[in-house]
Amino acid sequence: MSSRIDVGVLGATGMVGQNFAALLANHPWFQLTWVGASGRSAGKKYGEATSWRLDGSMPESVANLTVNECKPGNVPKLVFSSMDADVATGIEQQFAEAGHIVVSNSKNFRMYDDVPLLVPEVNADHLALIKLQQANRGWKGAIVTNPNCVAVPLAMALAPFKKYGITKFITTSMQAVSGAGYPGVASMDIIGNVIPFIGGEEPKVEEEPLKILGDLVDGKVTYLNAKVSAHCNRVAVVDGHTLTVSVELSQKPTKEQLLEDIRNFRGLPQERNLPSAPPVPLLYMTEDNRPQPRRDISRDGGMTVTMGRLRPCSIFDWKFVTLGHNTIRGAAGAAILNAELMHSEGLL
Amino acid sequence: MSSRIDVGVLGATGMVGQNFAALLANHPWFQLTWVGASGRSAGKKYGEATSWRLDGSMPESVANLTVNECKPGNVPKLVFSSMDADVATGIEQQFAEAGHIVVSNSKNFRMYDDVPLLVPEVNADHLALIKLQQANRGWKGAIVTNPNCVAVPLAMALAPFKKYGITKFITTSMQAVSGAGYPGVASMDIIGNVIPFIGGEEPKVEEEPLKILGDLVDGKVTYLNAKVSAHCNRVAVVDGHTLTVSVELSQKPTKEQLLEDIRNFRGLPQERNLPSAPPVPLLYMTEDNRPQPRRDISRDGGMTVTMGRLRPCSIFDWKFVTLGHNTIRGAAGAAILNAELMHSEGLL
Amino acid sequence: MSSRIDVGVLGATGMVGQNFAALLANHPWFQLTWVGASGRSAGKKYGEATSWRLDGSMPESVANLTVNECKPGNVPKLVFSSMDADVATGIEQQFAEAGHIVVSNSKNFRMYDDVPLLVPEVNADHLALIKLQQANRGWKGAIVTNPNCVAVPLAMALAPFKKYGITKFITTSMQAVSGAGYPGVASMDIIGNVIPFIGGEEPKVEEEPLKILGDLVDGKVTYLNAKVSAHCNRVAVVDGHTLTVSVELSQKPTKEQLLEDIRNFRGLPQERNLPSAPPVPLLYMTEDNRPQPRRDISRDGGMTVTMGRLRPCSIFDWKFVTLGHNTIRGAAGAAILNAELMHSEGLL
Amino acid sequence: MSSRIDVGVLGATGMVGQNFAALLANHPWFQLTWVGASGRSAGKKYGEATSWRLDGSMPESVANLTVNECKPGNVPKLVFSSMDADVATGIEQQFAEAGHIVVSNSKNFRMYDDVPLLVPEVNADHLALIKLQQANRGWKGAIVTNPNCVAVPLAMALAPFKKYGITKFITTSMQAVSGAGYPGVASMDIIGNVIPFIGGEEPKVEEEPLKILGDLVDGKVTYLNAKVSAHCNRVAVVDGHTLTVSVELSQKPTKEQLLEDIRNFRGLPQERNLPSAPPVPLLYMTEDNRPQPRRDISRDGGMTVTMGRLRPCSIFDWKFVTLGHNTIRGAAGAAILNAELMHSEGLL
Repeated sequence: MSSRIDVGVLGATGMVGQNFAALLANHPWFQLTWVGASGRSAGKKYGEATSWRLDGSMPESVANLTVNECKPGNVPKLVFSSMDADVATGIEQQFAEAGHIVVSNSKNFRMYDDVPLLVPEVNADHLALIKLQQANRGWKGAIVTNPNCVAVPLAMALAPFKKYGITKFITTSMQAVSGAGYPGVASMDIIGNVIPFIGGEEPKVEEEPLKILGDLVDGKVTYLNAKVSAHCNRVAVVDGHTLTVSVELSQKPTKEQLLEDIRNFRGLPQERNLPSAPPVPLLYMTEDNRPQPRRDISRDGGMTVTMGRLRPCSIFDWKFVTLGHNTIRGAAGAAILNAELMHSEGLL
Repeated sequence: MSSRIDVGVLGATGMVGQNFAALLANHPWFQLTWVGASGRSAGKKYGEATSWRLDGSMPESVANLTVNECKPGNVPKLVFSSMDADVATGIEQQFAEAGHIVVSNSKNFRMYDDVPLLVPEVNADHLALIKLQQANRGWKGAIVTNPNCVAVPLAMALAPFKKYGITKFITTSMQAVSGAGYPGVASMDIIGNVIPFIGGEEPKVEEEPLKILGDLVDGKVTYLNAKVSAHCNRVAVVDGHTLTVSVELSQKPTKEQLLEDIRNFRGLPQERNLPSAPPVPLLYMTEDNRPQPRRDISRDGGMTVTMGRLRPCSIFDWKFVTLGHNTIRGAAGAAILNAELMHSEGLL
Repeated sequence: MSSRIDVGVLGATGMVGQNFAALLANHPWFQLTWVGASGRSAGKKYGEATSWRLDGSMPESVANLTVNECKPGNVPKLVFSSMDADVATGIEQQFAEAGHIVVSNSKNFRMYDDVPLLVPEVNADHLALIKLQQANRGWKGAIVTNPNCVAVPLAMALAPFKKYGITKFITTSMQAVSGAGYPGVASMDIIGNVIPFIGGEEPKVEEEPLKILGDLVDGKVTYLNAKVSAHCNRVAVVDGHTLTVSVELSQKPTKEQLLEDIRNFRGLPQERNLPSAPPVPLLYMTEDNRPQPRRDISRDGGMTVTMGRLRPCSIFDWKFVTLGHNTIRGAAGAAILNAELMHSEGLL
Repeated sequence: MSSRIDVGVLGATGMVGQNFAALLANHPWFQLTWVGASGRSAGKKYGEATSWRLDGSMPESVANLTVNECKPGNVPKLVFSSMDADVATGIEQQFAEAGHIVVSNSKNFRMYDDVPLLVPEVNADHLALIKLQQANRGWKGAIVTNPNCVAVPLAMALAPFKKYGITKFITTSMQAVSGAGYPGVASMDIIGNVIPFIGGEEPKVEEEPLKILGDLVDGKVTYLNAKVSAHCNRVAVVDGHTLTVSVELSQKPTKEQLLEDIRNFRGLPQERNLPSAPPVPLLYMTEDNRPQPRRDISRDGGMTVTMGRLRPCSIFDWKFVTLGHNTIRGAAGAAILNAELMHSEGLL
């Protein structure tokens, strides 16, 4: 294990930071040796600075790390970032300038033309934007991002449809409370209830998939040319965002072709057998009433996106249900898979 | 009170039957004097034959009624029906033949050309189908139906858009467990979960609004000529179906015009001040995160449909959220309002 | 209505304050004309200063009141208080000194020897402590308190047992999230979960009932001489605290005697027909599986305490279940009933 | 793996049967090769006969087994039983007569004097009752049982107190819906609610721990001489029964002694490192608000019982919270650990 790569986490005491700590505790390639948080926590042991909100107990290996301020200097080259949006821009930039590879879950840099917004099974080739980024900005390091927690399963579920020409898609999300961090949604607001609004969510869900599903042409990403509309809702679920999706295609495949495409969908993470890669990234369930968040969200450590109910749509062409684990596949696990992909490309 | 009209309930021991009993207990026009159920319950007191599942206790006035078999003969002229679909056809027909006015919540007769499928604020004029029905079938009585519990708020919310030419609408429902009757949804299936499927629901949601929003032309209903697609889901909510809706229009009103139309939306029930009519049948809420089922479902005894979040849709024209009480406005209360409308028309 | 008594609310924008506003909106005796909150809100309209968290919408009559700072001067004589514990002591004292009757839901003064801790059906005679209080403290006004939201149903349910000599009682509470205010319990902490701890709750549950059930002797309260032990838990319920109770008695009544005592339990509020008094303050339910919070909490506007499952205890004498509405009977409604009692005594 | 012991499951299609199938899928000692169910299912593939209700998907190895009727003959010697109580007596007896070791989760035989009611960490020596059983009944086989799902964590949590002389204990349970099987508790009964009653549960919780904690004297079990009182409730939790417990002791250990006893509590399963044995069978959590079912129930595959909040009780001596996984540690996992214990004793 001594040959594992040292890694750090920026924003380590928050909810996504805790997920990084949990997922990295037994990682075969990466070893969490550095944790950064706000000045308030700096100098304390991670175990003292952090109110652990995940199931089970905090891994002992991380509990004893001393929390640092989020400044470069004596920090591992590879850092994961789960900083709050209001501070992420400055700090991530500072680390990239200082030569760090910043693999970020924050939204701040996602939509820049020279920043990869990655789902490794879908658009691993977008990593090439790093060159553009370094040229543009004069950085030795780089920033690589993963998408919003709804955009990940949405883009993955739509990926097999791409070759038939996606022209429109509309989605309604039923999102878990863990997506709001901690304390997040008040229990009085959600027990036996639905909240038909999540601040700032719909624009992300409408924009990010178009970049992810875009093509790399001459070193730049051409967005998918499709219209998108999203309705985002909060429901009384702990983990797992469920989406209904209707999609219009320019070509007209049969249901059998689509099911075959979905079932055969694989990417570089599967080819290269990356440590966090689920064997079947897009699992199609044949039961009428699946996928369901509580029952299906934890497959392969939360990295599998599930789908079901593919059927004709009387307005567009097809409609279906898809589900992804928002804090794993849609946050910390997504970033770790991005880093694994980069390592497999020799970029670390 | 001695001048109240005697009424009966077919299928009185089930969940919708219990809602009829609760809503009729203090009704100013109708007096529940007759309850019918399966042979198994016949002869018992209603209070013994029925496991009361609603909040609070069973009204004493109904507890002491003796349960009858569902056969005509010494039954009030006006009967509400909440029979199971597998027996409703024969029994409702038998009562209509025998001269009863059957105001039914069952789905069996909803889509026949000569049966009114009513939302009194929207298509009260469809009551004229009764003449056709009696002519066609040689009945002295009649069957009048109310729509499915999702179709009611959907049709009401779309009614103000109708004058602008509705061409397409797509909806995702998040439906309460009370819609499945009792015991209905198993708690193991829904705590902390979403079930993305409700058997037989999507076709009803896609078809019924087109009849409700249709025009009466030459004594027959011409369906609304629109494409509809529905995604139906069950969520951990007790009462109240929440819908996201996107709608395409042939004309292009401004948001202000639409809001004014929604806010001014009234119908015969309001004009005539029917006992169960909510003063504002379609209440538009301006808060970003409303309506919410647990907080908004009980307005005006559950008869108000609430709306919110009207905003442009990047695929169609407009999108919004709407919410209706599935066992009141979408079932027993709907039928009672239908009967009140008929009484105000002199049809009882 | 012009003859209603003007009242104010200290801490009007918080959760209990909102309950005061809702319950006073149509009160036959009291008219809410003054609202006080922190300096941050002062000067704003109540409707702007307050995020309304209750079902339905804010009453318009209160929405237009201007929020004041919590200082005496041009304030109605009768003020309800739902101040946070960290500021209640000073402010309530200041108002009492200035001649106000402070009817408080805050815990700060509950356990003082010269402050009534009232459940009007149980210990209305403790109001006599006001004289002692005014003598001790030189106040023209007075402070009167209601108990903790668990102590209310516990004391009411035990009241009929008192004449048989209560020597020990042990209780486990399953408490609603609304008891924690807003935002209170995080949804991630309670969906599909139980939290077996509520900070500061068990001592209150163990102490307050002994004062409430105590006897007024020579103008002072002699506490009930019983041992008490409490286990307090939070469950995924919106409103309503459910308690299991085992109780030891020095005398040995039969079950029939106890049931008769419970069913006949009435107090001054019923005798005098006070506006908020439930006709049957302690409703015994005979069904095996009742009372249940969601189904039974709203009887008589939330002022009825329900009981059930009275049966022998193999360790003590009897065990049972009881349930009370924590924000109504256990907070704002309790205080209003206290004020009604005082009015009926000519103390306002 | 070819050397694994063949085992069968009686009642394999029910909820506990499904848990047996899941837990045995990768068991190092036992191989599930035979499944029995009612005549209705016999002859079908297990995968067709069974509606899978657990998280994830049915193990493929069991899906292809053919379901048999529950009759001896060509059945493995070791059979686990999760039969319904109304048929378990006859069938389990028939198998024991025919020489099978029946390791049963059913309640039918638990309280017979010659049937072990085992928690392997607590009373492994009670296995000696098998000799008495075989002598009494002339069986070549035997029946061994595990306790009710509340009795298991209750007995385990009390085991470290036993040496100080347990004289009384009182418990209130907050039980998960999975304890009621499928469909079990209706969602309308439990969303946002508590049901203060579980049919037939309290007597089991009051009796079984006294046998489990009893001493084997001269080949027979002398029950623990303590008074017990239980209050059983259903709450909106999927898995995991949480108990509050107050206990009276004849000796007076310090809190430090008790905590040391709890932390050092181990049994034969740990000594012998049985496959399903958790390393720490009774995990004491020091956080104020733990254990919590959703967060702590899955430790060590659901076999760890957790405790917390040990503090003085003002009526008895000590009070605390304990939690166990009802379908694993309180049902299928318990039976499998019993079988492992028997194997380690050379009894299979």
